[in-house]
Amino acid sequence: MSISMYQASVPVFARALGNLSGILKKAAAHAEKNKIDPSVLLAARLYPNMFPLSRQIQIATDLANGGGARLAGLERPTHEDTETSFEQMQTRIERTLKFLQSIQPDQIDGSEEKAIALTIGGNELQFTGQTYLFHFVVPNLFFHSATAYAILRHNGVELGKPDFIGGV
Amino acid sequence: MSISMYQASVPVFARALGNLSGILKKAAAHAEKNKIDPSVLLAARLYPNMFPLSRQIQIATDLANGGGARLAGLERPTHEDTETSFEQMQTRIERTLKFLQSIQPDQIDGSEEKAIALTIGGNELQFTGQTYLFHFVVPNLFFHSATAYAILRHNGVELGKPDFIGGV
Repeated sequence: MSISMYQASVPVFARALGNLSGILKKAAAHAEKNKIDPSVLLAARLYPNMFPLSRQIQIATDLANGGGARLAGLERPTHEDTETSFEQMQTRIERTLKFLQSIQPDQIDGSEEKAIALTIGGNELQFTGQTYLFHFVVPNLFFHSATAYAILRHNGVELGKPDFIGGV
Repeated sequence: MSISMYQASVPVFARALGNLSGILKKAAAHAEKNKIDPSVLLAARLYPNMFPLSRQIQIATDLANGGGARLAGLERPTHEDTETSFEQMQTRIERTLKFLQSIQPDQIDGSEEKAIALTIGGNELQFTGQTYLFHFVVPNLFFHSATAYAILRHNGVELGKPDFIGGV
């Protein structure tokens, strides 16, 4: 018995983004109920040199798109990073989920040893499919989605860990 | 080709905790340099009804211990949750890493379909080894370690994402 690269990637990404979508729906409802301009929440950050909520969401979707595309050898969907509302963020997440759904298991299965190179901040990083997935994409995706959650909790949005983890 | 449950679990947990250890070392150094009582950082939280840093660290280690133990069918190490200093938190992380290192790949490999039941908040959750790993332990572990990072960043500790992700 063994697990497949597909099972360890696409359903994990899709679940994280589905939960993030639910969190953002609660944030939008909180803003409306409390007469908070949604752009205030989207611009909120935990420290002046940290990214705001909007960027956390953008990066989370980029990681899922890039992760799925690189493992499957597909072109990754691009976004213009111009979202200014919760509705636009939901559209971005939906587009990402649609792309993930379009990936077939056999496009990703077998990518364990696939060479993947990324350039980040001028440094070239070399991975295998497996190290890219487990030690780069997954920690990064949860880092940004947990930071989005933390920003919203810090701003008084009522969320609980089940919103982040999702149903079993 | 395929990936194994061991590769998808123990090295991922160990890396997350190793990075958390490095983050806490920077936090301890920051406290000393800026004459901050370390207990102030350990008690810091992002919202009154969120857990403080100390509890985030405790839960992160519990998840790694519980994850490794349940998948391998071993007794999990217990902690008394009485840590009051960064040194004691480092000891807790070291104990957890030692336990993870003691687990042999063949104790976890093949646990994909193993039935795992957890009771959380009075609800019994039923998993397979694979859903437990990918949809419960990993998201939870990164949730708590990212929240620990967020609490420290919010309190002015100079950290960057490489501290969270680690070297490739």
